[in-house]
Amino acid sequence: MNNNIFADRINDVPRSFIREILKVAIDHSVISFAGGLPNRELFPEKELRQATEKVFDTYGKDIFQYANSEGFYGLREYISKRYHEKKNLDIPVDNILITNGSQQGLDLIGKILVNERDDIIIEEPGYLGAIQALSIFKPKFNTIPLHDYGLDIAGLRTVMSAKQPKIMYCVPNFQNPSGISYSEDNRSEIAEILKNTGTIIIEDDPYGELRYSGISKTSFKTLLPENTVLLGSFSKIVVPGFRLGWIAAPAHIMDKLIVAKQAADLHTTHFTQYIVYQYLKDNDIDAHIAKIKDVYGKQLQAMLNSMEKEFPDGVTHTSPEGGMFVWARLPEHTSSRKLLELSMQDKVIFVPGDPFYVNRQETNTMRLNFSCMNEDTIRSGISRLGKSINKLLRPLT
Amino acid sequence: MNNNIFADRINDVPRSFIREILKVAIDHSVISFAGGLPNRELFPEKELRQATEKVFDTYGKDIFQYANSEGFYGLREYISKRYHEKKNLDIPVDNILITNGSQQGLDLIGKILVNERDDIIIEEPGYLGAIQALSIFKPKFNTIPLHDYGLDIAGLRTVMSAKQPKIMYCVPNFQNPSGISYSEDNRSEIAEILKNTGTIIIEDDPYGELRYSGISKTSFKTLLPENTVLLGSFSKIVVPGFRLGWIAAPAHIMDKLIVAKQAADLHTTHFTQYIVYQYLKDNDIDAHIAKIKDVYGKQLQAMLNSMEKEFPDGVTHTSPEGGMFVWARLPEHTSSRKLLELSMQDKVIFVPGDPFYVNRQETNTMRLNFSCMNEDTIRSGISRLGKSINKLLRPLT
Repeated sequence: MNNNIFADRINDVPRSFIREILKVAIDHSVISFAGGLPNRELFPEKELRQATEKVFDTYGKDIFQYANSEGFYGLREYISKRYHEKKNLDIPVDNILITNGSQQGLDLIGKILVNERDDIIIEEPGYLGAIQALSIFKPKFNTIPLHDYGLDIAGLRTVMSAKQPKIMYCVPNFQNPSGISYSEDNRSEIAEILKNTGTIIIEDDPYGELRYSGISKTSFKTLLPENTVLLGSFSKIVVPGFRLGWIAAPAHIMDKLIVAKQAADLHTTHFTQYIVYQYLKDNDIDAHIAKIKDVYGKQLQAMLNSMEKEFPDGVTHTSPEGGMFVWARLPEHTSSRKLLELSMQDKVIFVPGDPFYVNRQETNTMRLNFSCMNEDTIRSGISRLGKSINKLLRPLT
Repeated sequence: MNNNIFADRINDVPRSFIREILKVAIDHSVISFAGGLPNRELFPEKELRQATEKVFDTYGKDIFQYANSEGFYGLREYISKRYHEKKNLDIPVDNILITNGSQQGLDLIGKILVNERDDIIIEEPGYLGAIQALSIFKPKFNTIPLHDYGLDIAGLRTVMSAKQPKIMYCVPNFQNPSGISYSEDNRSEIAEILKNTGTIIIEDDPYGELRYSGISKTSFKTLLPENTVLLGSFSKIVVPGFRLGWIAAPAHIMDKLIVAKQAADLHTTHFTQYIVYQYLKDNDIDAHIAKIKDVYGKQLQAMLNSMEKEFPDGVTHTSPEGGMFVWARLPEHTSSRKLLELSMQDKVIFVPGDPFYVNRQETNTMRLNFSCMNEDTIRSGISRLGKSINKLLRPLT
């Protein structure tokens, strides 16, 4: 058997380098900043179990039957109401589709919108899951650099004047991998540039509720309602393992998404949808989110403080106001892959920047996750990582 | 907003005509042969609830975290062992991937194997879900007629001599929509024709365990192991609502499937996988399947007996040995859509053959489901349908 039996599209999908690195993390003495996992200690186990029992009591066999592709109405209504209460966004229940995490949202959006060789815009560095999902549809990626305040406006203008991108994929709040959030000004400028262009903004917002400082920013859905598709997820505020997310899209796009969802897997299991709905009904989710924010916020602070103390001059990093990641930059022409080789000897791992770029092999950047370990572990890991950086930068001393 | 924002691929996907018909079934006085639902009375509710409680007791928070893309090892091992015990097939655990029902299996297979304009083979009539899932990848469908004994061999030879089809999709046991099973001779002939051609057989077998008469037939996985990908599902033997199925594929294909699965939704929720695994471990699934077979077998017999009695001469039908569907054929040039219009007035619905053909609008065939209603209801529905057929064929009497 040779390799040419495969479709071209699958050969363009980058393998998850992160998966490979994470294999090292099985050794429990390794401090891993490489993952992107929520902290399991914060999973509402007891409450989800109670919700599950109530679902069995209330719905009986109905939860086991085939169900509609759009998802459980109660859960979609809850999402619609929460958008109204929290963001002043009016999104009809019919414009919400439940997906297997927001990762599936990306697959469905690629399927219905992206023809081969269509131009699309993505942040640099960009979310690896989006690069993987969208690569399947063989678009031309146009990367726009990220700054501390958001997307590079000149770069966006250049792309928009030369091309007609089908979509712009972005994570405006606490981006993965950088932790960067777009400023209000940056959002307005982007909206102004994209207005009347036909380019659809895919606003992926898995971390939006996890803000530890600063104030909430305006969604593109408010600025350009007809041109924006929102992706949301219960992974970071309830549990990731249920694989429950959603797409909020204008009606004409939703029509096609439902056709694609049906072809993809008929529907997401309603069983977990009923459980999460029951959990949300019976518990104070805002209090739960406050607890997560308190824990992650302190962990972030511990990481930033340690970096200031332990990393040598010339190493910079972002200062996220939320989310799960900090992005650090070594001096120019320094390889973060080489750093990983060194730090692994000292049992610290992270993700070098490479997989977050569409077209680069060797970078001086790295992603550090702070959500799934305590402050002491973070301090100890950053201290060891600082020593490895010093070793890399001054190999002879 | 106009329509040209969409990818070409999504415009080729047939909408589910069945969904539209099923809306009529909300009226409880309607007898619906249109669905494809397992009988909810047979769902092992109590046992699944016990299994769920045990999963909470045993695994705690681990079931809520992100997990591997391949699926829960225990469940994959169970599937591997069952293939060995029931079919004498040796399929390593690593060659099994858990999917969101076998529908997702079709999506992943299309993604990794089918380039635009690739030739593929599909049965006529064919499974609507496969037509929908594969249409996304814009293949050229080559349809091969089904006979009572299986696939048309002359038709297969013609296609294979003129083209190099990437895949042949088939449901050799109790096909949906026809109920037809391939005979042993038919399977051998097909395997002989496809041997050394590079065409991959996608053997979809959701109903294989639901045999009510006759003897089990040889899988293409036995006849052409390296060229066959098997799709399986818990939907018909446990419950459909969990959306759990699997793909069993040779290692070189599995590699790519895992990349595609990861890009599609990271992984299927392990929560329901643990529950089904626990259920299978603690209960006698063969006894449960025997119960389903007893019920469905009697319902099938009631339907066939009623058809013999109530349908006029000139109407033929298949005599399935298992599964969930019977396929009936009106006299040539008679429209089953027109029959549906008549029978709906008498509160009986079914699916006219049209959506099961890739390229036909007007057919004299129809699919009748017998799994989700009792024998009396079946008799009464077939009697009313017989009257509608008589009205259609002899409108003036």
